[in-house]
Amino acid sequence: MQMDDMILVSIDDHSIEPPTMYEGHVPAKYRDKAPKVVRTPEGIDQWVFQGTATSTPFGMAATVGWPAEEWGRDAGTYSELRPGCFDLKARLSDMDANGVLASMCFPSMAGYNARTFAEAPDKNLSLMMLQAYNDWHIDEWCAGSDGRLIPLGMLPMWDADLAAAEVRRLAKKGCRAVSFLEAPHAQGYPSLLSGYWDPMLQAVVDEGTVLCLHIGGGMSLIKLAPEAPADHSVIVPTQVMTLVAQDLLFGPAFVKFPTLKVAFSEAGIGWLPFYLERVDRHVQNQKWLPNHFGGKLPSEVFREHVLACFITDPIGLKNRHEIGIDIIAWECDYPHTDTTWPESPEVVWGELTEAQAGEEDIHKITWQNACRFFGFDPFTRIAKPDATVGALRRRAAAAGIDTTRMSKHEWRRQNEAAGIGVVAR
Amino acid sequence: MQMDDMILVSIDDHSIEPPTMYEGHVPAKYRDKAPKVVRTPEGIDQWVFQGTATSTPFGMAATVGWPAEEWGRDAGTYSELRPGCFDLKARLSDMDANGVLASMCFPSMAGYNARTFAEAPDKNLSLMMLQAYNDWHIDEWCAGSDGRLIPLGMLPMWDADLAAAEVRRLAKKGCRAVSFLEAPHAQGYPSLLSGYWDPMLQAVVDEGTVLCLHIGGGMSLIKLAPEAPADHSVIVPTQVMTLVAQDLLFGPAFVKFPTLKVAFSEAGIGWLPFYLERVDRHVQNQKWLPNHFGGKLPSEVFREHVLACFITDPIGLKNRHEIGIDIIAWECDYPHTDTTWPESPEVVWGELTEAQAGEEDIHKITWQNACRFFGFDPFTRIAKPDATVGALRRRAAAAGIDTTRMSKHEWRRQNEAAGIGVVAR
Repeated sequence: MQMDDMILVSIDDHSIEPPTMYEGHVPAKYRDKAPKVVRTPEGIDQWVFQGTATSTPFGMAATVGWPAEEWGRDAGTYSELRPGCFDLKARLSDMDANGVLASMCFPSMAGYNARTFAEAPDKNLSLMMLQAYNDWHIDEWCAGSDGRLIPLGMLPMWDADLAAAEVRRLAKKGCRAVSFLEAPHAQGYPSLLSGYWDPMLQAVVDEGTVLCLHIGGGMSLIKLAPEAPADHSVIVPTQVMTLVAQDLLFGPAFVKFPTLKVAFSEAGIGWLPFYLERVDRHVQNQKWLPNHFGGKLPSEVFREHVLACFITDPIGLKNRHEIGIDIIAWECDYPHTDTTWPESPEVVWGELTEAQAGEEDIHKITWQNACRFFGFDPFTRIAKPDATVGALRRRAAAAGIDTTRMSKHEWRRQNEAAGIGVVAR
Repeated sequence: MQMDDMILVSIDDHSIEPPTMYEGHVPAKYRDKAPKVVRTPEGIDQWVFQGTATSTPFGMAATVGWPAEEWGRDAGTYSELRPGCFDLKARLSDMDANGVLASMCFPSMAGYNARTFAEAPDKNLSLMMLQAYNDWHIDEWCAGSDGRLIPLGMLPMWDADLAAAEVRRLAKKGCRAVSFLEAPHAQGYPSLLSGYWDPMLQAVVDEGTVLCLHIGGGMSLIKLAPEAPADHSVIVPTQVMTLVAQDLLFGPAFVKFPTLKVAFSEAGIGWLPFYLERVDRHVQNQKWLPNHFGGKLPSEVFREHVLACFITDPIGLKNRHEIGIDIIAWECDYPHTDTTWPESPEVVWGELTEAQAGEEDIHKITWQNACRFFGFDPFTRIAKPDATVGALRRRAAAAGIDTTRMSKHEWRRQNEAAGIGVVAR
C-alpha cells in the first residue's frame, strides 16, 4: 500500500458560511430578520442577528490560505479568504487537492453549538433561523456536494425538548449527526450528568444519530491565570475533553442510553491510553465508591460509545491498540490553523508508517471507522478506485487547483477583482 | 536482574503527623498557641489552630491499613490507623516490608502547601508554627530515619519574600525540596506567570532546591458539574498538571530561571508524550504567536526542568523514551488510597517488564533519576547491597512485620490496648 492508495474521510472540518446562506431558507416575511453580513465602517465583515454582531468568520477560523505569520485573531473580510472556506465548488476542489474524499463541516457563524441563536432574546426567531441554518447546510452545502459532505446539524440549546424535536426533524432529512456543546454546564446549561438532556439523548439514540462534541465551547470550565498567553487557549481545550469523558463515563448517560454514540471531535487521541488505564485502575482500586459499570471496565464502556478523533497524533497512532483500533478516526480541520491541508496525506501517512500501521489499521483510521460510526457510505457516487488520495489529486491537478499560500492583501486583490467574497458596505 | 534486585526511592509519600509533633519545636511561651490535636465529643481526632479545626489526618489520606471497602472521607481517630502512618519506627518497618529504601513525605495536617497556616489570621503565629513544622519534619521525622527520609519543607504562601527566606533557612538545615502549590492562582494567590514569586524562585535556584508541585491543591481551577461524583476528584487532579506545565513552559519562569527544577508529584507520566508532541507542534505551527524557546523545542525545555513522577503507569513506562528516560521517577504514595503498598515491587516490576525496560532504564526510573534530581545519596548509611528490595524485605520478615489489612475497629482495639495513637478527649 502506498500513500496514494489511502482513502481519507475527515469528520472535522468547518464551513465559513457564505453571506447568502439564509436566502431561500427563511419565509419571505421573516427574511429581513435573518442573520446578515454587513461590512462595518472599519471595513470588517460581520454577521448581525437580532441587533448584535455575534461573530466573524475570520481570524483563526479561516487561515488556510495565508502564511502562518499572518494568522491571528483579527477580523477581516470574506474577500481576504481562500474561497474554499465559503464557496462549495472551491471547497470540493480544495478537498481534491488534499486527496480528501468526504468531509463533515462544523458551523462557524453561530458557533459550534448555535450559541448565537441560544443567546439572542427572541427564541422563536432563533429557532426559525437555526432550522434555516440546518436546512442550508443539508439542502445546499451537503446536497450540492455529490455525496462528499456529511450532514451535521445544530440544536436549540435553550430547550431539551426543542433539541429533541430538531434531532428528529434532522433525521427525517437524512442528517444523523449533531454538534452539541461538550460540557453544557460550561455555558450555564444543566450538565450532561443532570438528566436534563434525556429527551434529546433519547431522540439521538432513537434516530441512530451521533452526538459530535467539538472542543472549544467548554473552555470556561478551566480557570486560566490572568496572564495566560494565547497559547493556552490553543493547547488546553483538548484537556477539557477529559472532563467530558468523566461526565459521560461516571454519569448516567451511558447507563441510560447504552447505544449512545459520541464523537470527541478534535480532542486528539494520544491522551486516551493514560486516561483509560487511569479509570480502569480507579474502579478496581476505589472499591468504596459506587460503580455502575456492571461486569465491565470503564475503558470497555468507553469503546462502546466513543469515536476518538485526531488531526495529527504520532503517539496516539503508535498506541492505537491501547486506545482501540476500531474507535479512531482522522480529521483534516480545514480551514483552521491546525489543519494539515494541503499536505494531509503526507502528514497522516508519515505518522501511520512511523507507527508501523498495516493496511487494515490504516483503512480503519482514515475512513472505515468514521463511515461505520456515522452510517455514511462514501462510495455512492464516486467509485472506490476514483476515491483514493491519488485519484483525487490527479483530478485536482487536471483542474489546475493552486494551493499556494498568499497574503490577505493579495487574496483580497484577486478575489475582489473576480467579484468573489464581496460584501456591500 | 530480578525484582528483588531493584532499589526503590519514592519521592511521594505522606506523613500523618503525630499529635506530639510541635513539642520541642515551639518556644515555651507560645506552646499553648501551637496546633494541637483534640478529640471531639463525637470521638474524632482533629487538629485545631487559631481556634479553627483545620483538617483531620484521616479518611482518604490514611487508608493503608484498611480493606478498600472501608475507605472513605469519614474522619476518625489516630488509633484506627496503621501506626506506620504517624509513627517513625513503624513507618521505616513498613518501608522495609515494601522494599522501599528511601522516601519523601508530603505534609498532611497543614495541607500540602501550608494552607492551614496561610489561612489563619495571625500570620506571625502562622510563620512560627510553619517553621516549627519544618523543624519537626527535618530534625525528628527525617533525622531519625537513618538517612532514609528525604526532607521536604513547606513555605509561607502569603508572602513571597518570607517564602524566599524560608527556602534559604531550609537549605541551611540541609533541606533542598519544598512543597509548593502547583497553581497558586487556584487559591487566590498571584499565578506562576505573574512574576510575583520571583524572589522565592530566585532562592530556590540559588540553593539548588527542588520545587515539588503535588496534585490536588489546584483542583479549583476546574469547574466540575454540580452532580459530579467523587470519582472526578480522584481522576481529574492529574489533568490540572497540564495547566501547570502550560504556566511554566509558556510563562516567564523557565526563561528567567534556567536552572529551576520542578517535580510534578503524583501527576502521572502517561499523558506527557501527547502533551509534549502537542506543544512542539503548536510552536512549529502557530508562528504568529510570540515564542521564547530560542532554538529549542518546548519539549526540550520541559525535560531540562521537570521530574515526572508516577505511582503506576503502564502506558507511560511503555512510552518512556518519548517522555525522556532521565526525567521519570517512581512514587509509592503511602499511606493514601492510590498507594501500591505493600506490593509496590511486584506492581512496578510488572509494569517495567511488560514495558520491556532493561536494567539501566529500571534503575533510572526507580531511584537514580530521583536521587540525581534531589541531590540525595541513598547509600550514606545503608550500603547498596543492603538497600535492595530483597534485602529490605528480608529484614522486615526477620522483624515479623505484618502487612495484613484490618478493619478500623480492629486497629482501634489493638492500638488502644497497646497505648498507640491515643488522644485525650
